[in-house]
Amino acid sequence: MAGNPYEKRATPIKRLPHKESHDRKDLIEILNRSRIAHVAIDDGGPIILPVAVAPWRDGDELLLHGSAASRLFRRLAEGAPACISLTILEGLVLARSAFESSMNYKSLIAFGVGRTLSGDEKVEALLALTEHLFPERTSELRDSTEKELKATTIIALPLDDYTVKVSDKEPEDPESDLGERVWAGVVPVAQVLGKPIPASNLDPSIPTPGYIDRWH
Amino acid sequence: MAGNPYEKRATPIKRLPHKESHDRKDLIEILNRSRIAHVAIDDGGPIILPVAVAPWRDGDELLLHGSAASRLFRRLAEGAPACISLTILEGLVLARSAFESSMNYKSLIAFGVGRTLSGDEKVEALLALTEHLFPERTSELRDSTEKELKATTIIALPLDDYTVKVSDKEPEDPESDLGERVWAGVVPVAQVLGKPIPASNLDPSIPTPGYIDRWH
Repeated sequence: MAGNPYEKRATPIKRLPHKESHDRKDLIEILNRSRIAHVAIDDGGPIILPVAVAPWRDGDELLLHGSAASRLFRRLAEGAPACISLTILEGLVLARSAFESSMNYKSLIAFGVGRTLSGDEKVEALLALTEHLFPERTSELRDSTEKELKATTIIALPLDDYTVKVSDKEPEDPESDLGERVWAGVVPVAQVLGKPIPASNLDPSIPTPGYIDRWH
Repeated sequence: MAGNPYEKRATPIKRLPHKESHDRKDLIEILNRSRIAHVAIDDGGPIILPVAVAPWRDGDELLLHGSAASRLFRRLAEGAPACISLTILEGLVLARSAFESSMNYKSLIAFGVGRTLSGDEKVEALLALTEHLFPERTSELRDSTEKELKATTIIALPLDDYTVKVSDKEPEDPESDLGERVWAGVVPVAQVLGKPIPASNLDPSIPTPGYIDRWH
């Protein structure tokens, strides 16, 4: 297993320290609202891939889910140090100048070496991940087969070296721009779910489940 | 300037080759719809940061926008090889098993070494970026000052080593699962804009601009 290079890291994310949040509820909110993480490892140069993500162990760890055959998950399983980013865009900040215009967001950047789950913990984590991505649905689905479990890798990454940032603000125009005759404010951004589209081979006597409404 | 390690890269993104798109309109759609890129560089281990992004030169390059004081942008300006990911989540794919359940998305992963823009090209790129993030608004905003330009770094990254993936499918359950009495289909996911919130110091005689309606 490779050493953890982050132990001697000169952290590059010290910019905008006023946006850092040390409130655990911001961390938990980001975890609860994220379905996709961007995961970077070094592989002859940095590479990023988007992967399915869920919180684990009350937010002490992150679950990353992928194919056992994928190069990223084989490298993670070997102990490749990873950087994980979860980003939730929440608003467009329209200031009176291009310079002050920005975006509101909540983000997590975490660093670490994951552990590969196996046995009962892997089964439990897979259920938790499915329940996170598709709430209330796991009880309806058949158990995973041995073959399916074998084809899946689940990595748990400790959440102890991370930064949470929250930008949730009005435009901050300098005094000298307040006379500009231009609208200023925030346009909120949200992710929404559309009307469920049944599979073409779905038995029409099976109704759309009520839990999907609760995902909104 | 560092060499480009990707020249000898064993690409880790060869999984799911059936999802690769070589249709330029998919690339252009991803660029047009993305406001945030995840950018990874090596900095004593891989690090990822979310940054503002826009297409450039008809999609032959990507513009990345950040503070000249940030470590990421200083490293990019020095020629650090970067991996950039743009991901648009488009749907939740509810299959009849956890294993086949997945997400629909469009994604771009690009690799390369950027060039730092300066002079007129930088001014032009900053306008293009502002116009991309806030369409039809640039003509209302005052010009950037010399000081603002100096505090901003704009990197153009060539789009010649990249992969576009498009997953836009129904659940693909094996024959053996078609008898499961569970709903299957796709729940679309979309990003929407909310009602604009005026800045608390906005002159109330300035109306909400009509172009914001057209951003939807």
